Amino acid sequence: MVDNAFKQIREEAYAGNMELPKNNLVIVTFGNVSSADHGRGVFAIKPSGVPYEQLSPEKMVIVDFDGNIVEGDLRPSSDTPTHAVLYKHWEDVGGIVHTHSTYGTAWAQAIMDIPIFGTTHADHTTLNIPCAPPMDDEMIKGQYEYETGFQIMNALKDRGITHQDVEMILVGSHAPFTWGKNAAKAVYNSVVLEEIAKMAMFTLQIHPNNPLLKPALIEKHYQRKHGANAYYGQK
Amino acid sequence: MVDNAFKQIREEAYAGNMELPKNNLVIVTFGNVSSADHGRGVFAIKPSGVPYEQLSPEKMVIVDFDGNIVEGDLRPSSDTPTHAVLYKHWEDVGGIVHTHSTYGTAWAQAIMDIPIFGTTHADHTTLNIPCAPPMDDEMIKGQYEYETGFQIMNALKDRGITHQDVEMILVGSHAPFTWGKNAAKAVYNSVVLEEIAKMAMFTLQIHPNNPLLKPALIEKHYQRKHGANAYYGQK
Amino acid sequence: MVDNAFKQIREEAYAGNMELPKNNLVIVTFGNVSSADHGRGVFAIKPSGVPYEQLSPEKMVIVDFDGNIVEGDLRPSSDTPTHAVLYKHWEDVGGIVHTHSTYGTAWAQAIMDIPIFGTTHADHTTLNIPCAPPMDDEMIKGQYEYETGFQIMNALKDRGITHQDVEMILVGSHAPFTWGKNAAKAVYNSVVLEEIAKMAMFTLQIHPNNPLLKPALIEKHYQRKHGANAYYGQK
Amino acid sequence: MVDNAFKQIREEAYAGNMELPKNNLVIVTFGNVSSADHGRGVFAIKPSGVPYEQLSPEKMVIVDFDGNIVEGDLRPSSDTPTHAVLYKHWEDVGGIVHTHSTYGTAWAQAIMDIPIFGTTHADHTTLNIPCAPPMDDEMIKGQYEYETGFQIMNALKDRGITHQDVEMILVGSHAPFTWGKNAAKAVYNSVVLEEIAKMAMFTLQIHPNNPLLKPALIEKHYQRKHGANAYYGQK
Repeated sequence: MVDNAFKQIREEAYAGNMELPKNNLVIVTFGNVSSADHGRGVFAIKPSGVPYEQLSPEKMVIVDFDGNIVEGDLRPSSDTPTHAVLYKHWEDVGGIVHTHSTYGTAWAQAIMDIPIFGTTHADHTTLNIPCAPPMDDEMIKGQYEYETGFQIMNALKDRGITHQDVEMILVGSHAPFTWGKNAAKAVYNSVVLEEIAKMAMFTLQIHPNNPLLKPALIEKHYQRKHGANAYYGQK
Repeated sequence: MVDNAFKQIREEAYAGNMELPKNNLVIVTFGNVSSADHGRGVFAIKPSGVPYEQLSPEKMVIVDFDGNIVEGDLRPSSDTPTHAVLYKHWEDVGGIVHTHSTYGTAWAQAIMDIPIFGTTHADHTTLNIPCAPPMDDEMIKGQYEYETGFQIMNALKDRGITHQDVEMILVGSHAPFTWGKNAAKAVYNSVVLEEIAKMAMFTLQIHPNNPLLKPALIEKHYQRKHGANAYYGQK
Repeated sequence: MVDNAFKQIREEAYAGNMELPKNNLVIVTFGNVSSADHGRGVFAIKPSGVPYEQLSPEKMVIVDFDGNIVEGDLRPSSDTPTHAVLYKHWEDVGGIVHTHSTYGTAWAQAIMDIPIFGTTHADHTTLNIPCAPPMDDEMIKGQYEYETGFQIMNALKDRGITHQDVEMILVGSHAPFTWGKNAAKAVYNSVVLEEIAKMAMFTLQIHPNNPLLKPALIEKHYQRKHGANAYYGQK
Repeated sequence: MVDNAFKQIREEAYAGNMELPKNNLVIVTFGNVSSADHGRGVFAIKPSGVPYEQLSPEKMVIVDFDGNIVEGDLRPSSDTPTHAVLYKHWEDVGGIVHTHSTYGTAWAQAIMDIPIFGTTHADHTTLNIPCAPPMDDEMIKGQYEYETGFQIMNALKDRGITHQDVEMILVGSHAPFTWGKNAAKAVYNSVVLEEIAKMAMFTLQIHPNNPLLKPALIEKHYQRKHGANAYYGQK
């Protein structure tokens, strides 16, 4: 039986997961979306290895922020400990997405930040999209997915930035993670990241050593959407 | 209530906006189309940040050529002042489109004109697709979107060309704008620009330093479609 | 009224034209297919500038091999004289296709033959896909589309090959033409050409200066499909 | 009449073949899937040159492991002897796929292994995807498709690896082959191979001379999915 208390996060996680193939961010089962309820200290996440077309809200697995299964017959995504660590430390984050989207993953495999080249990028963050370094061998051999969460947080810390400054990151040699206030926003960020990754790669093909976007444009575009006087979108 | 006088431009703007995702020119809400009525001195434009699938003719916002809202409950696109400036100065232009289409934006981020390499390009203009330089910091910090309109007009002026010579431009570090006698033609120009941008990038990948198309072919293909003796299309 | 004698070529030309957008070989109106009846000395071809979704067999224009309209209210494709010249000289060709497909056009814009790098290519021809040089200025200023037909035939002649050795060509600075025993085969060749063009470009990106396919493989794959002892496909 | 004993492999081969166009792995008729019944010593395979939309389970051809037709009115795929040789030698393999998928074929045309650059790759094998060298001229002129099977097995042997270590290979100058415990898994491997091929090419475009994935990550990701303690997917 399914606890009604988790109905909303099940539905949000389900809806988010179904957006991944629709937006060409995944092939086969290469991605997962979760939706958190910080009040109850749990999140709903995709079951591991189950094709998207076989998903339903009921099949989402309910897990607490220490990675323990609270409700569900299926195994949760193998990346569940990463989601758990991040929710535990980021109280304002309601949704997390992990994909192996093609262009974002290519940058991750190159272990390079995605440079800020245009206003499409600046509309979403003032920073290069960070690429966390690949983990130390000890961390990899230990609790790998759990450590991945710390690797993400440490990469932000090492650069002196927060998860609010940039809602997306590449894990070096691996692939992108994105987050947001809810699952829908986190999925939106995955869609945007893939487009930014593609545009940046093409920009360098047209113009190697392309300079970064100038500060005035970075500031202007970010503030249009995010500042105190933001005027993009509806009130 | 909706003024019947604006019915046609609402419908044309709506139809134009719906063409953007259909032609893979936008993701999420990255683009807007407007349709002008020069007789009434107004244009209809997409509301800001509203997903395409939620649009309707009634949701288009009616704005005058100074950027004042004439009719509509929603905020117009944040790029509205750019459209307004261009309509005010270009009396024969009935439609304007702004997108962040992938390949066009990559050229804009490289701050480079798209070189004329083939007859596909020459069928639409005899010129390289101009890339306006990024704006001065003062303009960016001022009325940014309003100044973007002037940046476009000045870039054409600096090259000694008019908005009739080339119905498309890249704004450096930003993205493409296109225009035409009506919204449908402006959207057509956005579709063509993206294809030309893609072909030009691939041409350089196959053959770096590819020479420009020779003048006789430029002239011939442009005149086939646009000259006094044009014979492309139906009478 | 429509002459019943032309029913079959109208239908074949219509069906062929509708395959172009379906196979992503064209945007807007950038391509045309014709189907010939050598017994009657005529061919059916797409009307100029008409969007594919508005086509019907009845709208195809019937033209003779000198380019004169035999039946039809619409203007035929502006490329009609090229088709006419080729049908006049190639008695065994029943279908011709012209597109501005993206990758094929990029090679044409680079004015380079598409090198034979693999068996996908050798399954269709033993030769590099030839790129005819751009035409002389005099030919361009004269009967341009008519001369395009001769440019294609001369390019084959200059290389000592025939239109049966390779059923596809690039016209330098312009775009691809393909042909075949009927319109369906000509369209098939356009689909194959675009894929070969794409694979060849990617091969060079992975391995610049990639060597050509070795002769034994060229011969083997071509004979599998085309030789006296061909064993590909059904009898 | 159709022998009921072959019903299952006919259906599996049919379903697998239909997945190829659905996953954009083939154009026209460029690919074939087979499904084997080792108990009966036969496999079902696509008929040669028949478009996917005209296929049905009944049209699959039943062939034994020496390449003799057991049941079916149509000619089997011209690549049938390659499938037969591999089934004869690999008792645990129930499905084989051959495609000319774009990116995989580009690597094959470059005659290069696909380097292991990220965890997407390591999730499926710890090895670079091998590219078998093009065959000797004698083998090409002899029983070409039969020898292709040996070329694949020899390429694995020369590297001291088995068909269980990596379920995919490129045949140099030609295209990919994949296999698996059944046809569905073999098709899955073709989908994955194409994505890995694409990501690796893009990685090199962003970062030429990109280093290989470090051993700890290779081991970790492969064991997550394949080791004795694998924890990816459902039990």
